[in-house]
Amino acid sequence: MLPAMAIVTVVGAGMMGTALCYPLVDAGHDVRLVGTHLDREIVASLKAQSHHPKLALDIPSEIRPFFLEELDAAMAGVEIIGVGVSSAGVHWAGEQLRPYARRERPMVMITKGLEWSGTSLATLPDVLERALGPELVGQISPAAVAGPCIAGELARRVETCVVVTGRDGVKLERLRSTLATPYYHPFVSADVLGVEVCAALKNAYAMGIAFALGMHELAGGVPGSIAQHNYEAAVFAQSVREMRAVVRAAGGDPESASGLAGVGDLDVTTNGGRTGRFGKLLGLGLTVPQAVERMQGATLECLDILRVMQSALPALKSSGALALGGVPLLEHLIEVALDGRPVAVPFARFFR
Amino acid sequence: MLPAMAIVTVVGAGMMGTALCYPLVDAGHDVRLVGTHLDREIVASLKAQSHHPKLALDIPSEIRPFFLEELDAAMAGVEIIGVGVSSAGVHWAGEQLRPYARRERPMVMITKGLEWSGTSLATLPDVLERALGPELVGQISPAAVAGPCIAGELARRVETCVVVTGRDGVKLERLRSTLATPYYHPFVSADVLGVEVCAALKNAYAMGIAFALGMHELAGGVPGSIAQHNYEAAVFAQSVREMRAVVRAAGGDPESASGLAGVGDLDVTTNGGRTGRFGKLLGLGLTVPQAVERMQGATLECLDILRVMQSALPALKSSGALALGGVPLLEHLIEVALDGRPVAVPFARFFR
Repeated sequence: MLPAMAIVTVVGAGMMGTALCYPLVDAGHDVRLVGTHLDREIVASLKAQSHHPKLALDIPSEIRPFFLEELDAAMAGVEIIGVGVSSAGVHWAGEQLRPYARRERPMVMITKGLEWSGTSLATLPDVLERALGPELVGQISPAAVAGPCIAGELARRVETCVVVTGRDGVKLERLRSTLATPYYHPFVSADVLGVEVCAALKNAYAMGIAFALGMHELAGGVPGSIAQHNYEAAVFAQSVREMRAVVRAAGGDPESASGLAGVGDLDVTTNGGRTGRFGKLLGLGLTVPQAVERMQGATLECLDILRVMQSALPALKSSGALALGGVPLLEHLIEVALDGRPVAVPFARFFR
Repeated sequence: MLPAMAIVTVVGAGMMGTALCYPLVDAGHDVRLVGTHLDREIVASLKAQSHHPKLALDIPSEIRPFFLEELDAAMAGVEIIGVGVSSAGVHWAGEQLRPYARRERPMVMITKGLEWSGTSLATLPDVLERALGPELVGQISPAAVAGPCIAGELARRVETCVVVTGRDGVKLERLRSTLATPYYHPFVSADVLGVEVCAALKNAYAMGIAFALGMHELAGGVPGSIAQHNYEAAVFAQSVREMRAVVRAAGGDPESASGLAGVGDLDVTTNGGRTGRFGKLLGLGLTVPQAVERMQGATLECLDILRVMQSALPALKSSGALALGGVPLLEHLIEVALDGRPVAVPFARFFR
């Protein structure tokens, strides 16, 4: 039996917000895509010629574009709200969505990130729920999508498996069945903390895994020559080990780090993303400011999450939640990215 | 304090056996490398000009080469024996090494593989120990090295992390300290079953992860274009999940699948090995015989381990050790590689 058609409004018309609309329209839903104030040019292009300049694709005409000023119209009769803003925009999104949030209306985020409250790691679904206002706390319980998904591939209907995580099992199952198509496979998880910690941390670790690419090139390596795969794979395995440790310290289920949100997203981020390109530049010996300049303004989530973890680590260690010596790689990544230290991965301190 | 110099004899002068000699000589040990009857040309080249034709390297003169007929001389005063034969040669190696095996003399294998006994999965250290003869069973307890290590990279002193696994903790620590150098980092694990199951299984799964590369090329993809990383990462994550399940079913510790021997070796095999090239050919739509022909006689461990698992799965499932539906990817890989079925990865049955 096909799931019933739903009215779904996605706020945030960047690459991932738009890509999420593909399985939704392919599954037959009524899909509205609302640009933020940062997406004005995108929405104008979508309205004029159905072309998404960042995805470099003509999008299906069934995806209906809206300017932010048309939010009321885009929300008419809405049953499910998608949130595809940047991580910096989550507080803003909470304020914008406040008038439309209802207990019975599932909300799902594709934004990834973490915040440090001063005493604990806060996931973005929780940040969003608080931003919706005090009278709604505990009623909305936003869900989130994580796992290995490059937007440009999803929008080309490459087979994709993701995790949908949340604390409300009924809404979670509704979201899963709404999103599922023959090429988009959502799996549910109740481990919000574990999944979201991995979704954020994987950017930091992918930066470190990519050091090897730069070192290979620095040594004169050409594609197909003897590379630094041993180095890369050792960092990859230690990354998974440390993600398990941080998830456990944060109160999540370490199994999430061995699944789609951890191992899977780490793999895709290393192979396909700007974070990998940034890490490669550091492996080439560029300083952080030089590497940032080369990235020409690309969002570098790895720096954001490393700043969060730089604040969080002392407390996680002093409380005993995280063992001393348990995250030597993460500590080195913080030194490299935030303290200007050269790359010198501490392999001998791994796997203790 | 430096560990004492040891006399180490490695049997098997292929790429990995030879590469293992690099950290050993760099750590100052007396290292003898013995070719099998299949390594005659290699040893002749090593003796004549210190050149290893398969590694395409001039090897350090401190690595002393021996023909198989000179085994006695190579074993004079030996303290540690390394076994670097092919997986098909383990029984043969047991017979050859029988005269030199002693309770107090650590033996360490770099050969990876599994055998199905009819009732359980047998690791190669156990196969070797039985092949050493009934009077030595329980006395030698061979150790094994696993984890992400491409021989050509180790022989170029790329930073490499490996697991040394065995049941005799004292010998294990001796091996670790003997092998450790500034670029070769062995970590010990007592989980022989888990580590060795991963070391073998990763070849099967790496074949499946590489399907995406072939499908990308088949779709006209060029390097740097929109690829199939979402597909690849989903298969990668499911592979780790299934390795954990098979390790548990075999009686090992699933954590090993999330570490160097599992995740780490899976990563390196996908990125750097012939198994990946073979999987890519299947993703391109070649039949197995066509793909095997293109590989020009390269050893395809993935086919060996898939045959072993084809025999093992019915028993592991009927005993309840492995849940029904727990390894849909492995079952598909068996269908593709052994039953001639086309590639059609069952994503919707993953992560259950």
